[in-house]
Amino acid sequence: MSADNVTRAAKTSRPRVVVIGGGFAGIAVVRELRGSDAEVTLVDRNNHHLFQPFLFQVATSILEPAEIATPIRSLLKEMPNVRVEMREAVRVDTSRRVVVMGEGDDLPYDVLVIATGAQTSYFGHESEWARHALGLKTLADAVAARNRLLTAFERAEMESDPGRQARDMTVVVVGGGPTGVAITGTISEFVRRTLPADFHNLDIRRSRIVLVEAGPRLLPAFSERHSSYATRALERAGIEVRLGFPVTNVDAAGVTVGGERIEAATVLWCTGVQGVPLARTLGTHITADGKVEVGNDLSVHGHPECFVVGDAAHVIGADGRPVPGLASVAQHQGRYVGRLIAARLASVAPPPPPEPYVPSKLATITRHVGIAEYRGRSITGFPAWLMWGLLHLRTLAGGHSKVMILANWLRLLVTYRRSARLVVEPRSTAEPG
Amino acid sequence: MSADNVTRAAKTSRPRVVVIGGGFAGIAVVRELRGSDAEVTLVDRNNHHLFQPFLFQVATSILEPAEIATPIRSLLKEMPNVRVEMREAVRVDTSRRVVVMGEGDDLPYDVLVIATGAQTSYFGHESEWARHALGLKTLADAVAARNRLLTAFERAEMESDPGRQARDMTVVVVGGGPTGVAITGTISEFVRRTLPADFHNLDIRRSRIVLVEAGPRLLPAFSERHSSYATRALERAGIEVRLGFPVTNVDAAGVTVGGERIEAATVLWCTGVQGVPLARTLGTHITADGKVEVGNDLSVHGHPECFVVGDAAHVIGADGRPVPGLASVAQHQGRYVGRLIAARLASVAPPPPPEPYVPSKLATITRHVGIAEYRGRSITGFPAWLMWGLLHLRTLAGGHSKVMILANWLRLLVTYRRSARLVVEPRSTAEPG
Repeated sequence: MSADNVTRAAKTSRPRVVVIGGGFAGIAVVRELRGSDAEVTLVDRNNHHLFQPFLFQVATSILEPAEIATPIRSLLKEMPNVRVEMREAVRVDTSRRVVVMGEGDDLPYDVLVIATGAQTSYFGHESEWARHALGLKTLADAVAARNRLLTAFERAEMESDPGRQARDMTVVVVGGGPTGVAITGTISEFVRRTLPADFHNLDIRRSRIVLVEAGPRLLPAFSERHSSYATRALERAGIEVRLGFPVTNVDAAGVTVGGERIEAATVLWCTGVQGVPLARTLGTHITADGKVEVGNDLSVHGHPECFVVGDAAHVIGADGRPVPGLASVAQHQGRYVGRLIAARLASVAPPPPPEPYVPSKLATITRHVGIAEYRGRSITGFPAWLMWGLLHLRTLAGGHSKVMILANWLRLLVTYRRSARLVVEPRSTAEPG
Repeated sequence: MSADNVTRAAKTSRPRVVVIGGGFAGIAVVRELRGSDAEVTLVDRNNHHLFQPFLFQVATSILEPAEIATPIRSLLKEMPNVRVEMREAVRVDTSRRVVVMGEGDDLPYDVLVIATGAQTSYFGHESEWARHALGLKTLADAVAARNRLLTAFERAEMESDPGRQARDMTVVVVGGGPTGVAITGTISEFVRRTLPADFHNLDIRRSRIVLVEAGPRLLPAFSERHSSYATRALERAGIEVRLGFPVTNVDAAGVTVGGERIEAATVLWCTGVQGVPLARTLGTHITADGKVEVGNDLSVHGHPECFVVGDAAHVIGADGRPVPGLASVAQHQGRYVGRLIAARLASVAPPPPPEPYVPSKLATITRHVGIAEYRGRSITGFPAWLMWGLLHLRTLAGGHSKVMILANWLRLLVTYRRSARLVVEPRSTAEPG
């Protein structure tokens, strides 16, 4: 190749933007690059964008996996300058400006966006606790939790030993944030309303559902009044709420909390998130929970060509506290970074740094009871639940899924029946080498 | 316990009917025992009754698992004399009249019905072929096939080597019966109509879909004219139909058939069924394909208290050939045996042995094209497909599922979009010991 050709090739090659992660933040970045001059590559381990706020409804047999997941390709198919790759990114080499992939090859970039989200943290007890206390971050997690929960009650139905039966009928949820509260409420309805019709040998009154929170109150992002409201609503539904003590042990048969042993076949872990290992390979400052400290414009210190958005980033909000790990926050950050990259590529003035974003606070507690702090107003009960459902449904991708989810909710509202009560133990999927 | 108590306990204990398997046959048996004096126990490894005729639509991302599966408990909840146990039956001990269960304990019976269905047969090559050529008998099978198929095309999209890319884009379906024909047709539409919009780097014309049948024609249960119709319909859809040669090898990278090597990342095995191991433990005569030879009344020779129904039984039809493994046949047999048991328990005259049952023949071939031999009439094209869909949908349990499935079909009819395009690699589900 002549020198002239090399020059021309370099000149005509378009800037390469690599986005790692197809969650709320990553998809928002890519969408802002529509019509830009960039050659965009979106990398994700999974083939689907996941609507995480509804994950607890998959774990509790209300929704099916496909209803809350959309193929990433489908979301981006109108964008000819985007390439989607379903594979694993292993580490970033900022000096060579490449992402090293799972197959050992390099994916070169001119601009890199890390939008890998967060993963479940067991506060240093990963190796002992993770297989007993199921996290809730991926579809596979939710399906595993659903299998665990349904299998435990199937076992209880056949069990003659009262101690083992009680253990099979006990569920412990660790973490009093929005996910922990929502899943506890919906498990309680499942056990008390859906199961009795089908399980003839179970005395459902023997079942225990315990929500454990290390802090002094549930839903700490909400007002104290709302925390008390949530606690009372859960307790009225027969749930035991334990506040103020961290879990000190988890094993195959239960948990220890505040010195008390609770025997439980199902333990769900809805507390603690941390950044994913990829973020650590950036070589910049990482917080104790593995998140990347970024500048005002969400770029990595010393690397203006690298950005971190969404749950992978450590960002301080207007109130001086880290911004919460919400879909709306991730989308807000993703849109900003996408616009910033588009402006740079077009050599126009960058957009101003993102305004402090104040997300609405919404939580669902028990059957059609929620709380909301929305535009300065406090709402509780069914109106808040409705707002929770509709505002979330609005941001869900895919009209077909919206219809299917509404049909499932309507059915649940009327009959307490849950369509996705399915134990599917996986079989291995060998692949050609 | 005094002798008097023992006598009273024996006198008041009701006859115990144990049914192994919650498929079409097993459920039909149990339903006929509604209101009888029997204490019925239904045992199944899974918690769900599966609508197997639609399994290929789960494998091809049209339907979601929960849409074709119903919790067995829900189906039988109106029957207080039925106990459902989700666990594994290991062997039958006819001399002690017990079923030995996976946990090592005995389940005693007075009357036993084996309705375990059939499993995939690789004709003696289980250990080498099963992990490469995926069967299609369970939900886990269908999810594994879906993962395999979607992952192969994801890999092809990233592949730069033309040979490996061609292999990733090649699907071989083994078996020209109704399942093989139906899945081949729907995979072809998936590859040619659904994928191109989302996969920008694939030249879909390079993909190959091959249907392999060892016999001289497809759909041997149908007339020759219909077989030719099906072959032509598949070939018009771009499918290669190979007749007359058995598969002689399967490995991670493809199959060998008629001396020809076909490189393929996805191999689906829709031929060959055999009885499950449990049937062999009856100690009675078993056919070469592991099915139990039964009398006119479906009882086991020498054991009038043991019945075998559905795909686990070897039954000769009016035409002198074994009856086909169809849902309607299994239901027909199950209803008869249920009535027979109920009559015996009530000490009334038994119903006459079942009339030779002539099932309708229905098959779906490609997008909304089917064939039917129904009440002596031959129907082809869209009317036959519609009949296939509606007659099957009618026998599906659960009104909610019917609505959901219709919604999915309607969407597919209009848009070619498939809602369940989801790769969910399973995570382990550890259970308390």
